[in-house]
Amino acid sequence: MQNVLGIDAGATSTRVAIHALDGTRVGYGKAGGGNPSAHGLEKASAAVAQALRDALAGVDPGTIAASVAGVAGKADALAPMFADLWTAHGIPGQIDITGDLPIAFVAGTAEPDGTVLLSGTGADAARIEGREQRRIADGLGWLLGDEGSGFWIGRAAAKAVVHTLDRGEDHGLLVELVVTHFLGSYRPDDARAQVDRVVRLAQADHMRLAKLSVLVSEAAEKDDPMALAIVARAARLLADTLGRVHQGGPVVVAGSVLTNEGPVRRAVRDLIGPFATAQDGAGAAAWLAALSLGAGTGSHATFTRAAGSS
Amino acid sequence: MQNVLGIDAGATSTRVAIHALDGTRVGYGKAGGGNPSAHGLEKASAAVAQALRDALAGVDPGTIAASVAGVAGKADALAPMFADLWTAHGIPGQIDITGDLPIAFVAGTAEPDGTVLLSGTGADAARIEGREQRRIADGLGWLLGDEGSGFWIGRAAAKAVVHTLDRGEDHGLLVELVVTHFLGSYRPDDARAQVDRVVRLAQADHMRLAKLSVLVSEAAEKDDPMALAIVARAARLLADTLGRVHQGGPVVVAGSVLTNEGPVRRAVRDLIGPFATAQDGAGAAAWLAALSLGAGTGSHATFTRAAGSS
Repeated sequence: MQNVLGIDAGATSTRVAIHALDGTRVGYGKAGGGNPSAHGLEKASAAVAQALRDALAGVDPGTIAASVAGVAGKADALAPMFADLWTAHGIPGQIDITGDLPIAFVAGTAEPDGTVLLSGTGADAARIEGREQRRIADGLGWLLGDEGSGFWIGRAAAKAVVHTLDRGEDHGLLVELVVTHFLGSYRPDDARAQVDRVVRLAQADHMRLAKLSVLVSEAAEKDDPMALAIVARAARLLADTLGRVHQGGPVVVAGSVLTNEGPVRRAVRDLIGPFATAQDGAGAAAWLAALSLGAGTGSHATFTRAAGSS
Repeated sequence: MQNVLGIDAGATSTRVAIHALDGTRVGYGKAGGGNPSAHGLEKASAAVAQALRDALAGVDPGTIAASVAGVAGKADALAPMFADLWTAHGIPGQIDITGDLPIAFVAGTAEPDGTVLLSGTGADAARIEGREQRRIADGLGWLLGDEGSGFWIGRAAAKAVVHTLDRGEDHGLLVELVVTHFLGSYRPDDARAQVDRVVRLAQADHMRLAKLSVLVSEAAEKDDPMALAIVARAARLLADTLGRVHQGGPVVVAGSVLTNEGPVRRAVRDLIGPFATAQDGAGAAAWLAALSLGAGTGSHATFTRAAGSS
């Protein structure tokens, strides 16, 4: 009996899936972020090692006939680490390393050609042909790009809130939610002092701004005008990023901002029309590994069925 | 014979001026940034101590009849340090601590009421009455505000450059200057790889973006459309910040973006009309100290004559 192994090493979590060739899942492991660009090589390697160990519990490593990993950022940096792990665990052969965007695309469709639009902490889109990445748009990082990402949305919220308070303008639900997120409470009579504290806290740990994106969704669902404006702008920017590389075929959306049902996902669908949603990336990588064997394999859906919650 | 002492503790430099009551300068010292918010208390204290030591060379500390300091940010944090320094040097009395914006205003005019607009690394405006700060606008920091500041201009340039290259659009002088600033050279045939390196370098040390503002000025002087658009937008934002607190009286501009002759200063003048330019802040603080003695003092111009280059 042969098995295949897939790895999805992303910015927020690392997942390893082991499937039989008919698609039955026989092992699964999950750990923290495994993106060497975001977390550094050491932390990324530790996350991959942990998820791999968990996935291999109860599986004979010698049965792994092929393996594929999707890695965001500088994937080459992880190659020696993968080789060491394969030797240590006695897994035959070598792992095939690809990018996070091809894996996200394959996690949403069995078609070989199309386009993937990702918005998580960062944001980018890629044209995929033959399940490989061609042109990419955005992915220019939190400071200068990633337009419409969770960080972008959270920073837009923080900017709108502090400028509203600085101008002494009327405040709404999003102002209350954001100030309370930072300070534990909101006191409309003391706006300037609260603004200064929010600015200091945001600057001291700027990546925490990404967490504000859920507050934007919450306020937008309650028709807060400031939140609705941010959602609309994020959706337009994401649609623009997609439009720069899309050339037909299915569109797959990936990343928490677009895979979670909510106002940004709905606004993007209104702009770009129907799309598929990325399911389990580790399962998609395992499906790619099964395809590489050229043998009859189980259905794409069996491999990519969302496994994150199990 | 009595003397007065003034301190201007800013984000990029700390200056201490000692003047006779007729305005004649008898001592001057200069050190690195003395802003406790930007540099931390220890570094700010060391800068003030060094500039004070240099200024006191050749001056009898017992002659200092009054002293005033202008400090950006959390001025209270510096009060114990000033008390210790005054004791250590045998300077009589206590120093009067005020903000950086009132000092910048006084450095540009002898009038008691008006408005100051500052654009250096950060940007803000303040309504000044009786030489004290009333309402303030912006000053919301590099991450969320400081619109039209040197950092804002530099980030706008970096954003425009990486998005232009990501989109494969035509490039101009500013693209060449910014990429060369980061990478040492610009190779139009290898845009995406260069973009990724610029993004990584910018994110690794985001405050270096403020240095790009001089490249924007350079390119704008040569009519680069991207640079001209950034200059125009920065000027509009600064004029808006001023407009939110201005209520008549002279407008004083301060900070390197507005005190250096160049495209931003010219564009702001086109929008808001004539303004005065802040001269030496330490001399202005010394003039305030002289005013506090109630004695007949030398002219405002004698005290605030630019001393930075001496």
